[in-house]
Amino acid sequence: MKLLHPENVEDIALGAAVLGTGGGGDPYIGKLMGIQAIREFGPVTLLSLDEIDDEDLIVPTAMMGAPTVIVEKLPKGDEIIKSFRALESYLGQKITATMSAEAGGLNSVTPLTVAARLRLPMVDCDGMGRAFPELQMVTATLYGISSTPFAMGDEKGNSVILNTINNRWTETFSRSITVDMGCTSLIACYATTGKELKEWGVPNTMTLVEEIGRTIREARASKTNVIEAVTQVVGGFQVFKGKIVDVQRRTETGFARGEAVLEGVDEYDSQILKLQFQNENLVAILDEEMVVSVPDLISVLESESGEPITTEALRYGFRVTVLGIPCHEKWRTPEGLALVGPRYFGYDIDWVPVEERYGQQK
Amino acid sequence: MKLLHPENVEDIALGAAVLGTGGGGDPYIGKLMGIQAIREFGPVTLLSLDEIDDEDLIVPTAMMGAPTVIVEKLPKGDEIIKSFRALESYLGQKITATMSAEAGGLNSVTPLTVAARLRLPMVDCDGMGRAFPELQMVTATLYGISSTPFAMGDEKGNSVILNTINNRWTETFSRSITVDMGCTSLIACYATTGKELKEWGVPNTMTLVEEIGRTIREARASKTNVIEAVTQVVGGFQVFKGKIVDVQRRTETGFARGEAVLEGVDEYDSQILKLQFQNENLVAILDEEMVVSVPDLISVLESESGEPITTEALRYGFRVTVLGIPCHEKWRTPEGLALVGPRYFGYDIDWVPVEERYGQQK
Repeated sequence: MKLLHPENVEDIALGAAVLGTGGGGDPYIGKLMGIQAIREFGPVTLLSLDEIDDEDLIVPTAMMGAPTVIVEKLPKGDEIIKSFRALESYLGQKITATMSAEAGGLNSVTPLTVAARLRLPMVDCDGMGRAFPELQMVTATLYGISSTPFAMGDEKGNSVILNTINNRWTETFSRSITVDMGCTSLIACYATTGKELKEWGVPNTMTLVEEIGRTIREARASKTNVIEAVTQVVGGFQVFKGKIVDVQRRTETGFARGEAVLEGVDEYDSQILKLQFQNENLVAILDEEMVVSVPDLISVLESESGEPITTEALRYGFRVTVLGIPCHEKWRTPEGLALVGPRYFGYDIDWVPVEERYGQQK
Repeated sequence: MKLLHPENVEDIALGAAVLGTGGGGDPYIGKLMGIQAIREFGPVTLLSLDEIDDEDLIVPTAMMGAPTVIVEKLPKGDEIIKSFRALESYLGQKITATMSAEAGGLNSVTPLTVAARLRLPMVDCDGMGRAFPELQMVTATLYGISSTPFAMGDEKGNSVILNTINNRWTETFSRSITVDMGCTSLIACYATTGKELKEWGVPNTMTLVEEIGRTIREARASKTNVIEAVTQVVGGFQVFKGKIVDVQRRTETGFARGEAVLEGVDEYDSQILKLQFQNENLVAILDEEMVVSVPDLISVLESESGEPITTEALRYGFRVTVLGIPCHEKWRTPEGLALVGPRYFGYDIDWVPVEERYGQQK
């Protein structure tokens, strides 16, 4: 058990942007909301998976929508509380804790607002170990946990409860409603018992993102190489270093989709890396060869400062380093790859573990 | 109080197609479902508005979607019961009766299945006195009745509960979900007390549609002029008689939209009438002059048989008579016209009561 104070939230938000793999939304807004809630209501208790009871009822909370819009359309603040309360009332049972559905990006910090304001603990785990663009893409799905009853709300006061036959349908319906709500919504779903969560949760991811954030902060302060420090703490590999020379981006069907083209520098001189994304970076293509793909993580860091760059912030001229990071083992099964592997996203290739290609170089 | 037997349902479905003004969905499927339910569970009790108690809780039930799809994608049968039960459970209160939200078209008969299978009475009224394409277009909206909690379901087993800040938002969300569900859904909404319903309901519309249906059936049997008999029973006016020479139709954003062009015969020789529709006929344009518009009813009947023709059944070569029918007085207020008048549908004209233009001819 530990307490999360505003300074922890700063580190968590910074580190979460690395695991956000370009997506998950810029944590900035969620961080401000979380810090404000903690200042007002006190620090948030973070419980590890083995500190929760089997009978606990845990409900992840999150923002849903296109990151391009989330950065411009601020939540009012109480929508997420309303969604959470709506679900609790629908379940007719007291919810004992909240958690992050995705530790990557904005949704690492979104549940802090709920936890602080409702004086509930937050569990140190998530359902991805990174960020993914679609709602069914959580380890909960692999373990047969239903996303419904699923509560969602907007800043105008509209709310929705979904009950679906599978998590893919929840994604379909909630995505449509999110688009109608103005491309962002606040959600509460995947209600789960403590016993179940110990099986499907990706453990210690809040601690991990905080450690990543602290590493970046400390490396900057001590003027050591930030990129190397991050690479080490996440157990990843340097895939490319270059300059962004082109970005295509469009917001469609509730997602930010597009491609960034990087021209190599240093040892990557005269090489071209393409990053394709749907909210998150999906694949990295080096001179027409797919070198990293989902479910492994592809993170883009500003080469000097180590600042993680989200897909909506990619700009011509940025000098960046691309990391490939092994995903959690739960994704490395046939079921995991069917849910979030390259073929699901329309790439006709088999996933190759990033460490198989890059591990020997280290 | 009266009992509805299969033969009443036949007349109701036939008459409802006249008030459907081309939309509301072909009642055929709903009629078969209603008749089957009555055969299995016994006749349905029809209560007039003054036979219900102020404390009664009445919930209209309906199908939602594009009529073009509804005729091809049959409901499984129990979805509407599920939506109704979901709403009842959400309300935490026993629902005492159901009713038709729109007496025109398919939804005159949809609630019969619910009423028969759950042994509940049906109230002899509706919320339109016709059919309209959008969900907020009911007299309930004019009286401040909320469409939510709003329950909807599909044949796959998915269900949704909406709570919105106004009925226009319910339309937006439920239309998106309906599209996702495959362009049809089963809904239960506008829960209302008996006291409220006596204010906002359009009274005796089930009796009216049954009378229209019976009139058509009897006129056919006695070989008298069906068109004239229908015109008389609905208190309408003959606007045009001609041959369909062109139909443009597309299913978009969950609606069937389009235009039919009619070439006049007899006294309308060498005149052209255009009908524009969004599920329902919206306006009739005679040689470029708008002669009938919503909220008044525009019904297209096959000239010989008097068979009402829905917009999805309009075909080249059909010989048809177009009737203009005065809408219920509740629509003839500034609020009513703002909700369902020609300007809402994008026509920059004032509504002119159909009887002002055609009344003197009779």
